Amino acid sequence: MSNETLEPRDWDAFRAQAHRAVDALVDHIGSPREQAGWRPVPPTVAARLRAPFSAKGVGLEAALEDAIYDVLAYPTGNAHPRFWGWVIGSGAPAAIVGDLIAAGLNANNFGSEQSAAHVELAVIDWAKDLLGYPAEATGLLVSGGSMANLAGLTVARNERGGPGVREEGLSGHTARLMVYASQETHSSVRKALELLGLGERSLSLVPVLADKTIDMGALRTAIVRDRELGRRPIALVGNAGTVNTGAVDPLAALADLAAAEKLWFHVDGAIGVPALLTARGRELLKGIERADSVALDLHKWLYMPYECGMVLVRHGGAQRRAFGVPAPYLAPGGGGTADGPFAFNDHGVQLSRGFKALKVWLALRAHGTQPFAAAIDANLDQAQRLAARIGASPELELLAPVALNVVVWRYRAPALAPDALDALNRRILTEMQTRGIAVPSGTLVDGCYALRAAITNHRSTDADFDAVVEATVALGRELTRAAAA
Amino acid sequence: MSNETLEPRDWDAFRAQAHRAVDALVDHIGSPREQAGWRPVPPTVAARLRAPFSAKGVGLEAALEDAIYDVLAYPTGNAHPRFWGWVIGSGAPAAIVGDLIAAGLNANNFGSEQSAAHVELAVIDWAKDLLGYPAEATGLLVSGGSMANLAGLTVARNERGGPGVREEGLSGHTARLMVYASQETHSSVRKALELLGLGERSLSLVPVLADKTIDMGALRTAIVRDRELGRRPIALVGNAGTVNTGAVDPLAALADLAAAEKLWFHVDGAIGVPALLTARGRELLKGIERADSVALDLHKWLYMPYECGMVLVRHGGAQRRAFGVPAPYLAPGGGGTADGPFAFNDHGVQLSRGFKALKVWLALRAHGTQPFAAAIDANLDQAQRLAARIGASPELELLAPVALNVVVWRYRAPALAPDALDALNRRILTEMQTRGIAVPSGTLVDGCYALRAAITNHRSTDADFDAVVEATVALGRELTRAAAA
Repeated sequence: MSNETLEPRDWDAFRAQAHRAVDALVDHIGSPREQAGWRPVPPTVAARLRAPFSAKGVGLEAALEDAIYDVLAYPTGNAHPRFWGWVIGSGAPAAIVGDLIAAGLNANNFGSEQSAAHVELAVIDWAKDLLGYPAEATGLLVSGGSMANLAGLTVARNERGGPGVREEGLSGHTARLMVYASQETHSSVRKALELLGLGERSLSLVPVLADKTIDMGALRTAIVRDRELGRRPIALVGNAGTVNTGAVDPLAALADLAAAEKLWFHVDGAIGVPALLTARGRELLKGIERADSVALDLHKWLYMPYECGMVLVRHGGAQRRAFGVPAPYLAPGGGGTADGPFAFNDHGVQLSRGFKALKVWLALRAHGTQPFAAAIDANLDQAQRLAARIGASPELELLAPVALNVVVWRYRAPALAPDALDALNRRILTEMQTRGIAVPSGTLVDGCYALRAAITNHRSTDADFDAVVEATVALGRELTRAAAA
Repeated sequence: MSNETLEPRDWDAFRAQAHRAVDALVDHIGSPREQAGWRPVPPTVAARLRAPFSAKGVGLEAALEDAIYDVLAYPTGNAHPRFWGWVIGSGAPAAIVGDLIAAGLNANNFGSEQSAAHVELAVIDWAKDLLGYPAEATGLLVSGGSMANLAGLTVARNERGGPGVREEGLSGHTARLMVYASQETHSSVRKALELLGLGERSLSLVPVLADKTIDMGALRTAIVRDRELGRRPIALVGNAGTVNTGAVDPLAALADLAAAEKLWFHVDGAIGVPALLTARGRELLKGIERADSVALDLHKWLYMPYECGMVLVRHGGAQRRAFGVPAPYLAPGGGGTADGPFAFNDHGVQLSRGFKALKVWLALRAHGTQPFAAAIDANLDQAQRLAARIGASPELELLAPVALNVVVWRYRAPALAPDALDALNRRILTEMQTRGIAVPSGTLVDGCYALRAAITNHRSTDADFDAVVEATVALGRELTRAAAA
């Protein structure tokens, strides 16, 4: 039996190893063009990473070197200036320092009295203010947009699904409860409704207009028809930026309709809410302040490191009515640890909760909000500029208008059948990624395979976007030639 | 307009600040007896922490000092050797180094090809092996026990709730679906069933025996009665350590019953699963390998920093059937980033996911499993020793037998009415916490207020437990005298 323990015997050596880790991570984010791009994990590295753990360890020093050489070297790639895959934030360095402190503090911010509680409340207050929400609104940091949508839709179901949903569940319901959202809505909304026991069939996916925003006429028709069929509409979901193309639904019109129809109005703002820091964003997202609940993501377009999402509920008390559960071992005491300023655990799914707020707090305090607004404004400009460059190239095709920060395009090849054109563009994407040129991702737009850049990267420059345009053309020509040869 | 940006202008200065953060956190965890105890947040500090953010920041250096002085100084308290409140792990330093690297890497481990995917698979494989699960089992790191119970019970509902639950929801169901668990079961199970649309009334809380384990006779009777009433039993939940007293339900008997009644068998192992690293734990938890799903928590008794929970599902495919959702922008490519080894996003609620696995991987690789087993064994010994010391003191009363690592007790005061005795013990707890003596938490056991130590702390010594016993007696005497005076 080894006599190693979990506590370091030599704290100086431990301190040196922690500093070694920090040097490696500053190297990683400090020279992103050289270090942090995506590349496939070689099978030998994968095998080392997946090796079983043994009873006796290799020691922290050796394990740390393994992590630096085998883990840091094969990242998601989102620190790189040419990473625009899916919707993944680039990670503001000041926020990363916040996460370092959170790692060492190892707080459980469930609701007790501690600094983490006050820090999280400061971040929630900031978000309420950003949205134009009233003081009575409540909120919670969650892992991301999927959890935030689940939380918001849980409150919607419980507040509008008839009395006793928490106690009785849905099995007594004869009328199907209905939730409406555009066809471009994120899959997490469907997933949430499935989890909540409403079922996929309770989600009415409404057609979109050419700009990919919800067709309000079709929405009104769907509600009328469902009521006629004996179904019970309970909520509308609006998109403040769809995942596929960044389209922003007409939020004010949705708020009007929700009020008229007495429906809960939930906004999935995972993509777009941080744009409220800019004048353009405030104009585009007008009406969001009237939403009953909003899901947002700070690890996307606020450049926070993972994980960091948030849900906000406009009406005081509603969130706690959905999530509060008494538990004897959590009963407040008379001034001790249990008497914290806010029962976070009664406002979401989690009881034990980490300290996601510190990175937000540290970055907002260090930088102020202005540099965030400037970075988001720059991304909005870059998206318009990229779309214009694509539109100006006869060999490329822009596949949807650009409202926010998502751009979808493809290489044109008029001689090819639709399937072959899809395959060609898929191949262009793979080559662009594996050759280390840039990392957009792929999607389908109106059934056509598209390259897609979601620009939530504070490190990208105009030259980076020029490069991806040129690479699409060059790879398109090269792969077409190769296929013809 | 400021010209500050989110990217440091001076990387040397940034590096120095990151090192400053690490020094502060090593100071915090490196001298836990002096630095990391719980204390209330003074109102002036709370006001500083909650101050609104402005457009212009204070700079990283100043913000970092604020974090060190105002945030690190008022922690949850769980790094301290005398912290046993709720069930909060003490944080193994090697794992904290893993979290530092994860913060800098800022991975989104949703399912693409990257080192994080292989690391998480290694950790899941280790847990499957620990449980005695077959190769086909699947798993996922989640935020904690609440999410793990939700995930396991989602699979239970979908696999046993009849066909089409995902599509149709529960509103067509006429027979109430029933889930059985002991009265000592964690509130997150109730919360999960409410979220899933089953409703609180679908949870049958079965009485417990004197040792706080489920009464198997009462459970059998409840199932028979519910079937007679036309309800539809779908699942049993067994506790591998209850939160209140650490009781371990008879898991093998529950597995037998579940098999005979064709019910899903979910184990809430948030408290106890890491005990499987010890011979005693393997004996106590026998039968867990037959569970259909297991929720576990690594930020509790595996001493991982927050957040780190896990769900495991025994049957290949079941987890993906519950959570998989196709999305065009996530479609795999032909060898690029999207072709990862495992679609994590199709096995749980989250799409975007951080990199919780690295801390586990680094700590298990550095230490090996043996020092974890030794620390858990020591906590088991400490719980028995604490219970014995309480039992040996005529002024104290042990309120439940100790199976694992949770001890509940109170000060005796035969002259006091029950309410006054509860108030006295509540006061003893508050004084113990606010005077900085130790941090147990409080609970109710058979309706009586109890002090409670959940021992998931690798830093505690026998002397620490002696101190809490002595403090209970001393405070009991002092407060009784003060009340009489």
